Amino acid sequence: MAKKITSREENYSQWYLDVIDAAQLADSSPVRGCMIIRPHGYAIWENIQKELDRMFKETGVKNAYFPLFIPKSFLEKEAKHAEGFAKEVAIVTHHRLKQGENGKLVPDAPLEEPLIVRPTSETIMYDTFSRWIQSYRDLPLLINQWCNVVRWELRTRPFLRTMEFLWQEGHTVHATKEEADRETLAILEIYRKFTEEHLAVPVIAGYKTESEKFAGADYTTCIEAMMQDTKALQAGTSHMLGQNFAKSFEVKFLDEKGESRYAWQTSWGLSTRIIGALIMAHSDDKGLVLPPKIAPIQVVIIPIWGEKEEEKNNVFGAADNMAEKLKNLGLSVETDKRDARPGVKFFEWEKKGVPVRIEIGPKDLEADSMIVVRRDTGEKETVAMDSAEKRIPALLEEIQKGLYEKALKFRKDNMRAVNSWEEFTGYIPEAKEGEAEDAKSGKGGFLLAHWCGQAECEAKIKALTKATIRCIPFDQPEEDGRCVLCGGASKKRVIFAKAY
Amino acid sequence: MAKKITSREENYSQWYLDVIDAAQLADSSPVRGCMIIRPHGYAIWENIQKELDRMFKETGVKNAYFPLFIPKSFLEKEAKHAEGFAKEVAIVTHHRLKQGENGKLVPDAPLEEPLIVRPTSETIMYDTFSRWIQSYRDLPLLINQWCNVVRWELRTRPFLRTMEFLWQEGHTVHATKEEADRETLAILEIYRKFTEEHLAVPVIAGYKTESEKFAGADYTTCIEAMMQDTKALQAGTSHMLGQNFAKSFEVKFLDEKGESRYAWQTSWGLSTRIIGALIMAHSDDKGLVLPPKIAPIQVVIIPIWGEKEEEKNNVFGAADNMAEKLKNLGLSVETDKRDARPGVKFFEWEKKGVPVRIEIGPKDLEADSMIVVRRDTGEKETVAMDSAEKRIPALLEEIQKGLYEKALKFRKDNMRAVNSWEEFTGYIPEAKEGEAEDAKSGKGGFLLAHWCGQAECEAKIKALTKATIRCIPFDQPEEDGRCVLCGGASKKRVIFAKAY
Repeated sequence: MAKKITSREENYSQWYLDVIDAAQLADSSPVRGCMIIRPHGYAIWENIQKELDRMFKETGVKNAYFPLFIPKSFLEKEAKHAEGFAKEVAIVTHHRLKQGENGKLVPDAPLEEPLIVRPTSETIMYDTFSRWIQSYRDLPLLINQWCNVVRWELRTRPFLRTMEFLWQEGHTVHATKEEADRETLAILEIYRKFTEEHLAVPVIAGYKTESEKFAGADYTTCIEAMMQDTKALQAGTSHMLGQNFAKSFEVKFLDEKGESRYAWQTSWGLSTRIIGALIMAHSDDKGLVLPPKIAPIQVVIIPIWGEKEEEKNNVFGAADNMAEKLKNLGLSVETDKRDARPGVKFFEWEKKGVPVRIEIGPKDLEADSMIVVRRDTGEKETVAMDSAEKRIPALLEEIQKGLYEKALKFRKDNMRAVNSWEEFTGYIPEAKEGEAEDAKSGKGGFLLAHWCGQAECEAKIKALTKATIRCIPFDQPEEDGRCVLCGGASKKRVIFAKAY
Repeated sequence: MAKKITSREENYSQWYLDVIDAAQLADSSPVRGCMIIRPHGYAIWENIQKELDRMFKETGVKNAYFPLFIPKSFLEKEAKHAEGFAKEVAIVTHHRLKQGENGKLVPDAPLEEPLIVRPTSETIMYDTFSRWIQSYRDLPLLINQWCNVVRWELRTRPFLRTMEFLWQEGHTVHATKEEADRETLAILEIYRKFTEEHLAVPVIAGYKTESEKFAGADYTTCIEAMMQDTKALQAGTSHMLGQNFAKSFEVKFLDEKGESRYAWQTSWGLSTRIIGALIMAHSDDKGLVLPPKIAPIQVVIIPIWGEKEEEKNNVFGAADNMAEKLKNLGLSVETDKRDARPGVKFFEWEKKGVPVRIEIGPKDLEADSMIVVRRDTGEKETVAMDSAEKRIPALLEEIQKGLYEKALKFRKDNMRAVNSWEEFTGYIPEAKEGEAEDAKSGKGGFLLAHWCGQAECEAKIKALTKATIRCIPFDQPEEDGRCVLCGGASKKRVIFAKAY
């Protein structure tokens, strides 16, 4: 069953699919564009949920659950939002199956008003919020929902873009613009912190341009990560909705003077897509590489024994002891006692991205030590049994830090300022007609370039090179410059890149 | 806003709705039959998930996620299952909205094969399992999924019966019948233990009759609880599927001799419906009553202060101290410092079912004590500040135990053996034509009666009285008897009751 993983060099897209397959993260499903998240992949999502949920709740956010279905008329209410979302969606039109003539089941009982499977929940939530909120005392309202959403995507890729995906969507309501602005940024900061500190994926935080912002928002903020093929991946977004939805859905409150006012709102989301980023940021040609803080299994212990029963018992005993010790430190440990060759086991856990492997054999027992192997670098070391409780946690921290630093260095090496269209296209060339998306051409990367601020220029650059403005970074200093395409005046560089 | 809660005596159904509303557990939604689970209700579901998930995982079960949609053809495969589930379901037939002539959106782009929004996931999972499983080494396969499902119900009630609901569905595959039998019962035992020990709701475990079993199962086991109106509520089911689905979906494995064999399967589920049971088992005319082990907030501290700023500061300080102490014990504590009258706060937290209320005012501070009030009995006691860390946890345990005992006594008082049709109908009378479902008639309750084992008799009793066989209890001793309706021979009593 051990299919070889295609190397990144050979075919990056195939490598990504092979890693997912080899690590048993996900599987294709009989429903076009929907994937099955396998236990190892789902355990990563559970860890993501646990940590993010804790971070949201610390700020006062509470979880709730709203219906899967949205009445079609709701999607018609906010014009810009409708433009963006009322397109490729799953539509429920019937509510019964009846026996057809050839023994097949056929849809029956048409609905008066079709229902849309939620692509996002602004409309259904805000309709309700308008009833929940009476006065300023009910604000801020801070709601989050963990759920599935459906967007009818044509081209899908596991985790990165699937028709159905899992996510959290936060929706908050505030009395003032300032509060809503603050909330938008506070949540983006949670996303940044989580992605950098837990997933070890460095990101650049910034604003989306007008053409890339969320349909119905005043502005959108985002975090963008660089993958190993130097393409960008948007890992989370936080939107300031202004009063756009409040006006469409009558989300109003009585202020302290008893005057009725429209509320200010935000929405923000992070999805299973981020598992795609996690995979592509760290993994190698041997398979998945996971940062310890998010790995479902942090340490795997592999006992090695010969034919003697006594030897087996001793080695198993030592492995159990070590597992117990490490578990008591709060680590997630698996002991692999299956009757298989050690090499087979090494190979399997390597593919699954377990950060640390411990080997305990008869000779190790004699020396009261064990062999410890890092998944990320492959480095081996001998660790005395009685120093394991110090060394293993320290090693996990080193790995966590090492992965982040490595990814950060990679991004720095592949991010540069460019000052002319010639320079720009030296890295991201103009795409030729009919060229395959993944054709190797130019070094790619993140290009810090001046842009005049015109949507036309942005669109032209996209049409020519497939590069989009990933974000206008928060921390980019102002400087006078000329648009890389049209030469118009610009005050700030933005990041251009090809993106997932 | 303080709407009065209808008393149970006056109108039990309305009382149930009023409690949900007063405790802010759920809200109706603009989508017919779908409810909105509000933060306080969702926090209960999160606590249920956390505990059950832990219990499942302890037995080796792993979580995964399968698609929301099921191809219509899959539902046609297992005949009995199709009969039960391929009826009232939500059907996706189109995947695009386009602008209609009057500015309205209309469904566009019909699907080649309609997709069914999962009413349960046997078919889509087992199609995949057939590819995951190669040999006996891949068994047992123990998978669970937390998700939403949709069944197009005509009459809905919050939590008890909604079109969309949240649940967990477990699906396991085994090499032998014996193992699958054991798994079916092991999971039911988890449901029993959880429901009795965490929700403080006593249940009766047993088998469903042939007519009440899961569509496609060999047999179904269940736990049944008694509500305060003496009706039954099925709180969880665990199904032995035999090889029925294995044969329809080719779930086969190579045994140790290399021979291909069909696998044995189980499935089991527990849903947000159990929150309905929780509400109806314990609550009173003042609102929700929650057992401490499942309550999102276990203790609410209400500081009471007068006009002096110093007094307020002292009381707040003492409240914060106490909250800190109790949180350090792992308790979930809320301190209500809002600028509102204490009576208003008492009333609100009472409605929300917080098990213990602590009042701290200036006089309490002087005496270095506090007033502690139980939600379930209303009993007040004075507790010295420095004994709180002992008394509060002990009190919470007393409440947990007290609620269970009270519910158990209620069930005992309303469960009885009956030996004739006359006796039976003395408790559950024959329903008159056109009579309202909730019309008071007879004492109701659980009736332990002999039954001949014929589906015809079972159906006739249901038609006459609306009572169904809730289960054939595991622990019911064998005894010779005569069917309560037809007089046919019977070896065991079963439980008849009206049910939710």
